[in-house]
Amino acid sequence: MEPRGESPQLQSVRTAVVGASGYSGQELLRYLSRHPVFKLCLVTSRQNAGQSLSQSISGLPRELGALTFVDAAPGAALAEQADLFFLAVPHGTAAPYVVALRAAGKTVVDLSADFRTTDPAVYKEFYGHDHPAPALLPEAVYGLPEIHRERLKSAKLIAAPGCFPTSIILPLAPILRAGLLEPDSIVVTSLSGVSGAGRKVELRLLFGEVNDNMYAYGVPRHRHLGEIEQELSLAARSQVIVTFAPHLVPIHRGMLSTITARLSRSATDADLHAVLREAYGREPFVEVLPAPELPEARHVANSNRIQIAARVDARTNRLMLFSSLDNLGKGNASQAIQAANLAWGLDETLGLA
Amino acid sequence: MEPRGESPQLQSVRTAVVGASGYSGQELLRYLSRHPVFKLCLVTSRQNAGQSLSQSISGLPRELGALTFVDAAPGAALAEQADLFFLAVPHGTAAPYVVALRAAGKTVVDLSADFRTTDPAVYKEFYGHDHPAPALLPEAVYGLPEIHRERLKSAKLIAAPGCFPTSIILPLAPILRAGLLEPDSIVVTSLSGVSGAGRKVELRLLFGEVNDNMYAYGVPRHRHLGEIEQELSLAARSQVIVTFAPHLVPIHRGMLSTITARLSRSATDADLHAVLREAYGREPFVEVLPAPELPEARHVANSNRIQIAARVDARTNRLMLFSSLDNLGKGNASQAIQAANLAWGLDETLGLA
Amino acid sequence: MEPRGESPQLQSVRTAVVGASGYSGQELLRYLSRHPVFKLCLVTSRQNAGQSLSQSISGLPRELGALTFVDAAPGAALAEQADLFFLAVPHGTAAPYVVALRAAGKTVVDLSADFRTTDPAVYKEFYGHDHPAPALLPEAVYGLPEIHRERLKSAKLIAAPGCFPTSIILPLAPILRAGLLEPDSIVVTSLSGVSGAGRKVELRLLFGEVNDNMYAYGVPRHRHLGEIEQELSLAARSQVIVTFAPHLVPIHRGMLSTITARLSRSATDADLHAVLREAYGREPFVEVLPAPELPEARHVANSNRIQIAARVDARTNRLMLFSSLDNLGKGNASQAIQAANLAWGLDETLGLA
Amino acid sequence: MEPRGESPQLQSVRTAVVGASGYSGQELLRYLSRHPVFKLCLVTSRQNAGQSLSQSISGLPRELGALTFVDAAPGAALAEQADLFFLAVPHGTAAPYVVALRAAGKTVVDLSADFRTTDPAVYKEFYGHDHPAPALLPEAVYGLPEIHRERLKSAKLIAAPGCFPTSIILPLAPILRAGLLEPDSIVVTSLSGVSGAGRKVELRLLFGEVNDNMYAYGVPRHRHLGEIEQELSLAARSQVIVTFAPHLVPIHRGMLSTITARLSRSATDADLHAVLREAYGREPFVEVLPAPELPEARHVANSNRIQIAARVDARTNRLMLFSSLDNLGKGNASQAIQAANLAWGLDETLGLA
Repeated sequence: MEPRGESPQLQSVRTAVVGASGYSGQELLRYLSRHPVFKLCLVTSRQNAGQSLSQSISGLPRELGALTFVDAAPGAALAEQADLFFLAVPHGTAAPYVVALRAAGKTVVDLSADFRTTDPAVYKEFYGHDHPAPALLPEAVYGLPEIHRERLKSAKLIAAPGCFPTSIILPLAPILRAGLLEPDSIVVTSLSGVSGAGRKVELRLLFGEVNDNMYAYGVPRHRHLGEIEQELSLAARSQVIVTFAPHLVPIHRGMLSTITARLSRSATDADLHAVLREAYGREPFVEVLPAPELPEARHVANSNRIQIAARVDARTNRLMLFSSLDNLGKGNASQAIQAANLAWGLDETLGLA
Repeated sequence: MEPRGESPQLQSVRTAVVGASGYSGQELLRYLSRHPVFKLCLVTSRQNAGQSLSQSISGLPRELGALTFVDAAPGAALAEQADLFFLAVPHGTAAPYVVALRAAGKTVVDLSADFRTTDPAVYKEFYGHDHPAPALLPEAVYGLPEIHRERLKSAKLIAAPGCFPTSIILPLAPILRAGLLEPDSIVVTSLSGVSGAGRKVELRLLFGEVNDNMYAYGVPRHRHLGEIEQELSLAARSQVIVTFAPHLVPIHRGMLSTITARLSRSATDADLHAVLREAYGREPFVEVLPAPELPEARHVANSNRIQIAARVDARTNRLMLFSSLDNLGKGNASQAIQAANLAWGLDETLGLA
Repeated sequence: MEPRGESPQLQSVRTAVVGASGYSGQELLRYLSRHPVFKLCLVTSRQNAGQSLSQSISGLPRELGALTFVDAAPGAALAEQADLFFLAVPHGTAAPYVVALRAAGKTVVDLSADFRTTDPAVYKEFYGHDHPAPALLPEAVYGLPEIHRERLKSAKLIAAPGCFPTSIILPLAPILRAGLLEPDSIVVTSLSGVSGAGRKVELRLLFGEVNDNMYAYGVPRHRHLGEIEQELSLAARSQVIVTFAPHLVPIHRGMLSTITARLSRSATDADLHAVLREAYGREPFVEVLPAPELPEARHVANSNRIQIAARVDARTNRLMLFSSLDNLGKGNASQAIQAANLAWGLDETLGLA
Repeated sequence: MEPRGESPQLQSVRTAVVGASGYSGQELLRYLSRHPVFKLCLVTSRQNAGQSLSQSISGLPRELGALTFVDAAPGAALAEQADLFFLAVPHGTAAPYVVALRAAGKTVVDLSADFRTTDPAVYKEFYGHDHPAPALLPEAVYGLPEIHRERLKSAKLIAAPGCFPTSIILPLAPILRAGLLEPDSIVVTSLSGVSGAGRKVELRLLFGEVNDNMYAYGVPRHRHLGEIEQELSLAARSQVIVTFAPHLVPIHRGMLSTITARLSRSATDADLHAVLREAYGREPFVEVLPAPELPEARHVANSNRIQIAARVDARTNRLMLFSSLDNLGKGNASQAIQAANLAWGLDETLGLA
């Protein structure tokens, strides 16, 4: 199962995870603990500072579990301690780290949304304030390897996307590129597991509030719509805006997206399947399911895989796209590593099998 | 909390539940055990025949728990034993009971889909075979009290709808009647708790298959679309066909439907809310939620209530409707009792508070 | 189903719930909203002050939902506003309310642990500080109706027990009274749903931490052992100390206790069953299950009932007792109302059917 | 993370899984798909015969997913197709396979209970009928590596234990060997996830029956007590019988056991911890937790690890032992592979990291 790329001459890369007490951070640590090249040397967390990793994360190898969380402010002192930095800090707080680390020439994979929109006006529209570091936006590469692989190979600042964008952009992009749908007719419903909201200590995230419950939220203008529409517009080569309804469901890991749009010309299930197979047939982490299979959350749990399927609703002349991924995996931590592998010139699958 | 209509002169009605070993049947028994007029005198189940009710259903009053399940074939002998019959048998098996019971003049509330479509051609389209008793279709009344209240008052055969139709028709009907949306643009996503699939002993319904999992199914042509489009077309006074994506989520009770459609004319959140309030403001079991509230599954669990909310997505010129109900309650058993109350000339809320 | 005691001449009792934003408080409100005599006139919550009840609790009747949470400090002003007070505040914070309300002659049902141990030394042993109002301990009556019914009939201060004590004391008391077990051999394992921990906004209670997880905690000296051993010793007429292992399991409502002890003399399943039936055969809320039935959490969910069963393990000469209850119901809110019914001279089952 | 033992000269072993459609079988396939030596060449399942593995098990490498389930009867033809056989068939159906495979000289790891008790009389006591192949019992080795490592190194027939025995024997054995407890005072409570019951299509295992529910079962004489007491007696060098209360809880994977016994002499938490550390300090898959940590189900999910902790209850002079494991991992499939590694002379951790 170890990728071919793992040969003795590969040099270790000093790797840091900044903000590692949340679900994203923990998942990064689990994946990185098995990575043959990216070697953890620094793990920061304000909340867990002074504790050993094994106190809050189980199943780590002993030498890694003995590492201690430190509290590190953005700055040159932090930058000196590693060469590759994964930022798993909350949206809006990554920018100062990025500025300091890029000033020191370090490679940064930012899992927050801070550098995902290329246009600072779009950032302001969805986040309500000016972008904190617009000068760095041009060098940020959106971290979807299946879409931006070539640019990622030379990226120094990767804006790793989250679960909603990944689960929506990957199914839609090839269909948009093929001109098979009417771009103004896209309606997306996503079901998100609770880990997508992070490990925040909030009333609404208590077991007693989530179990046996479900609801839509964040409608009609979820803050991740900006980056979603940016990437869909790139694929369509025209402005795309979508109706988006996210839902919370009582599951920890997992995201399911169901996308409908009006067909722009006649097509069959087989036609859609062929377009998706053409786009993703050789991708190591994308499974295009043949009918009658449909994506399921458990099929991709604890993995970097995404499942995609397509159907035509001939009665209404619409297509239906379905995707499932692990919102801590392909929707977050493991995809960030996939992008970092590319940026470091490594086999893209390293540490992810 | 006891309804005004409960006065001493109300005579008991001999009531039977046919097929009471499933989740629908059990829920009927729980509601009927508290009903002041409908008095259970007969409970049938092939599977549990010979057992006392308390062996398979907890929390029943003692005298009711002592009642024994019997195995009763459709026919005149069955018809003699009660005056009001609730049928909780699988789709496709209700017709022989309905024929025999109506021949004996009895009132029947059929919770299966057998008599929900008025047009036998639609039945054949969605169920794949000829309707087994087309002669009875004209007298069947679709059991949605908020839509067909007047006809239900004299109904002898009630076709009680299930969870998907109830959660979709109630939010959409007033908006369609008001002409606020383009009828060919409706897209519906529904999230269903597992109890909606019944108490079938099937691999896919095991805890190990459902927990930590979710998926879409039954696309693009779920068999309940026939009745859904029939009722939406009635409200719109024109043919309506919809794109429908049902999903299974890891919850026992509960259904959430999210509906989008293109606005046919400019409207605000307040406009939509006003239309819904106008339609349902005095309904005892419909809650129209003001912004920023959105329906939640737990808010309606174990009740006959449905929550509805509406939003405008100004960016895409679409409306979004949201509903939640208990798929064993307003989506099934308690709504059937609500309809039966009407048919028997009783206060509609009897036994449902 | 309405109890015989509900006759027109019953006068309403002005009733208050203090600290109603937690799970206990919400459950009290749900039960009280259906109570024919205890009429809610005051609901306090620091956290929700100013909000209407319906904003945080669904399914309340409209007139009750319109009531507003107020923030009320302990004192005479509070005491004037009602005649019966339910305190649903955290352990350790009830005493000032009790002092003020009793000074004003009001009846108090305290759901915290503050007045459950009659001996202030035991309180200090388990809570680590002096009892805040020892002068009131002598008048407090432990609120287990099946054990202290006569004293509850004249109680002015009821110390309502929680889920662990109720689920352990009720099965054991009759067996101890009958001298059937060796008092120093009792081992108790309890599985608690998360609602037993309250609606605290803490990391360990997040869905992501509870779902798919379980663990023992609070060993070997859980703070509720003091009251448990107090009541068991009363039943045994000798000092009883027990080994107790509480566990958290991924369920919201429900508690299951499994109790073992060495038989002091030969006994059969039937002997144990007879002792329990003799003790509880006429109790409205205690179900003694005949073999082969064993208690289940779902059988008592949303009710004031407790299920109990007993078995002999002839191979090891031990008895096994099993109980299940709803830790917000018989283990908390509804049992508090049962005790209050007794204290007010009402039918014990009022509002609880 | 790859074990040192993985060197190029290791020859592949033709490996079969018999009965691979259940949860145990699927878990075996997942672990074996990553095993560097045991190479799957045959997978049998009556139920799934003719299907590819990838149709029922997600996440397998492509070449493995393409393998087809076959339906194979016990016999010489089956024996020829592999050299190492894992049997994941139901209890009571393994014996004919074992007889045929051992007659052909093949190594067999039987995950059923058929060969776990060395005394056929004990087998008859707990299973109610004569042992089907008593002549093979002497060569069967109980598959707990931490207890029977030396005998496993030359084993040809491994009786791999299930989750209850593993979770109970491992914590107790060192304490019994040290003579720290009174052997007639042991009381065990185990909480089992649903996967422990297998992937049986039974009403009691439906999501609707398990979710929000929990209960004790199989008391007082669970059929796995025979092997548990056999192994505990070996450790104690005297006859041990225990009181055992298994429980089902709403979780898929995971087992938690809580064990109490009277101390035979004075001891502290540190004493118990030292005994466990002495026994397991160098074991790769046993984590002895220091106070105040206690085992949790999630810490060992999807792994071959077991967590163990001990406490003294000074008030009652009892010790408390706690363990957690994944009932498809260390309690089943991965432990079977650990034992097979030993039997094949490999590094014990191969394929399990």
